Amino acid sequence: MIPTTTPTRWQLADGREMLFFDLPGRHSDPVTDRRALTPNAQPPSQLRFDRTTGEWVIIAPARQERTYKPPADRCPLCPGPSGQTSEIPAPAYDVVVFENRFASLAGAGRPAPADGVAAPFVSAPGLGRCEVVCFTSDHCGSFAALTPAHARLVVDVWRHRTRDLLAHDAVEQVFCFENRGEEIGVTLTHPHGQIYGYPFTTPRTTTMLRQADTYRAATGTNMFGDILRHEIRDGSRIVARTGAFTAFVPFAARWPVEVHIYPNRFAHSLADLDDAELDDFADLYRDVLGRLDRMYGAPLPYMAALHQYADADAQREGYFHAQVISTRRSAAKTKYLASSESVMGAFINDVSPEALAATLRRL
Amino acid sequence: MIPTTTPTRWQLADGREMLFFDLPGRHSDPVTDRRALTPNAQPPSQLRFDRTTGEWVIIAPARQERTYKPPADRCPLCPGPSGQTSEIPAPAYDVVVFENRFASLAGAGRPAPADGVAAPFVSAPGLGRCEVVCFTSDHCGSFAALTPAHARLVVDVWRHRTRDLLAHDAVEQVFCFENRGEEIGVTLTHPHGQIYGYPFTTPRTTTMLRQADTYRAATGTNMFGDILRHEIRDGSRIVARTGAFTAFVPFAARWPVEVHIYPNRFAHSLADLDDAELDDFADLYRDVLGRLDRMYGAPLPYMAALHQYADADAQREGYFHAQVISTRRSAAKTKYLASSESVMGAFINDVSPEALAATLRRL
Repeated sequence: MIPTTTPTRWQLADGREMLFFDLPGRHSDPVTDRRALTPNAQPPSQLRFDRTTGEWVIIAPARQERTYKPPADRCPLCPGPSGQTSEIPAPAYDVVVFENRFASLAGAGRPAPADGVAAPFVSAPGLGRCEVVCFTSDHCGSFAALTPAHARLVVDVWRHRTRDLLAHDAVEQVFCFENRGEEIGVTLTHPHGQIYGYPFTTPRTTTMLRQADTYRAATGTNMFGDILRHEIRDGSRIVARTGAFTAFVPFAARWPVEVHIYPNRFAHSLADLDDAELDDFADLYRDVLGRLDRMYGAPLPYMAALHQYADADAQREGYFHAQVISTRRSAAKTKYLASSESVMGAFINDVSPEALAATLRRL
Repeated sequence: MIPTTTPTRWQLADGREMLFFDLPGRHSDPVTDRRALTPNAQPPSQLRFDRTTGEWVIIAPARQERTYKPPADRCPLCPGPSGQTSEIPAPAYDVVVFENRFASLAGAGRPAPADGVAAPFVSAPGLGRCEVVCFTSDHCGSFAALTPAHARLVVDVWRHRTRDLLAHDAVEQVFCFENRGEEIGVTLTHPHGQIYGYPFTTPRTTTMLRQADTYRAATGTNMFGDILRHEIRDGSRIVARTGAFTAFVPFAARWPVEVHIYPNRFAHSLADLDDAELDDFADLYRDVLGRLDRMYGAPLPYMAALHQYADADAQREGYFHAQVISTRRSAAKTKYLASSESVMGAFINDVSPEALAATLRRL
């Protein structure tokens, strides 16, 4: 039985919702947000359908003005006990979630239609939800440095938010992720992640589900489960294993650093995992991020993300997994996505997946 | 009638092929490459099939050691009259093409099989061809600053190389492009582009052709032609037009700077264009790149690329166009592809396509 996670609900000065999640035995004590924030008057974003690819693109000009690399002593994600200096009006917190002030997606309503439209220019309102998740109040911390219980709390928060946002009428898909490092454009260094509630199924998810359906039709088995089985049997790209999860570098890794973490049994999402499995996932996820930070003796810029699937017929082949990638191709060099990747989608990876896995196993 | 472009063929010390293309009335005079280069002993690259996306990934660990930001006085793309200091053993040149010393794809043979394979880990040799195209011997020049005749010569070179490489037995698709600027990872500042001869059809091309086939089945017309017609009728995203070509910001632009250049009539590739149309294309392409450089009063980092299609049944809906994109979202800010784009393929563009088009029209 999984303990229920009941957050303390709060509201920011401009009406945005905030949720405090506490470690066992602790209790958040927020104060009134006294900042002179006015409700967001930015023009809403728009979805536009790219006919040439069949994919939605989010056009969000209001985000141009978002906070850009504030000094550390004005970090908007550190606790703000006075209610005047930070996004988080509280003397302390464990994990806190709030609506992004510079949201690419916001508002309730019907999600975007699936396609099949014949008009030349098809658009839809940029509905949905963008949340910020502060992993810890320690400005200099990291996910890898969280205690096991704290990492597990973040996993529970992802589980809570996924369930909540899937009930949001505009949300088709929930995406929990962490962007870390200036090299990938992160403007706030305080350890935090984000959650997007998209009003459409993302292109990558659509592609993976299509591949998995094709695979099922051809073989009668689940594509992701077979990939995991083959990786375990081969062994050369395995990074680490626990009783319930396996971390490996995928055979056709696109990125110079890329690790996938699969549950050893089929699950659609965090919602399908039991208490012990959730502990196991938090441990292995933290372990993998820790190995990445030891690769070059400095925090590695990375993107860490959860692929979760809904318990719906169209997503029945979806197999929960985490994906961690980095553009760092050596201690001092970065992989850039240039024309081959950005225009043609043809990835060139300068690092051998087996060599990466061997390095990560040692660390 | 289009004048034939007959290059002077040369060979580098390690056996790589080089082609000199001259402006009318000029004649290249290469010298012997006297450098102590040994034939490439790097391990060849490998294609790996990513089952989860149905896409080939190129794994090329040998590229890790490629030339990285040499000082300007040791530029390997400037003319080297002694045959000892540069990749280009000649006192001068107009446009020169040669095989990349750090090729991601090299060698002849059968191209990669299309798919449908059931083995767990499917790979193929990284066959194909990677060429470098030096646009001018002027180290501080740019494509936008070429004379009209010189720009047209580069277009003729692309046409020549496309035809030649399509005859290469490993090559399925030819991709001519220019990556410019440190911001997108370009390690040599000398004005140059590249040509890839891929042993597979790239993911983006496959997607666009699938969309165009679906569109044809639904409407009886060509998708790209309809997009162009609608853009011209709407007008709000048009950047510039000539008799034979139209430049516009696409309705669902993914990038903060994105311009597409379409011929006003259907053509698969440069090979389908007549002499006057090729002049027109060179002019408008140069014009668009010039506008980009005037946006922020400094050379804009960009990727400029040609979408060309083969005169084959599977590509019959393919409509030739150029695509120019930049990650620069304001004078001082860069758009990074973070988790939403890199993991889920969901692009968020902070710039309004109509605002970008209005800016570019004025410049």
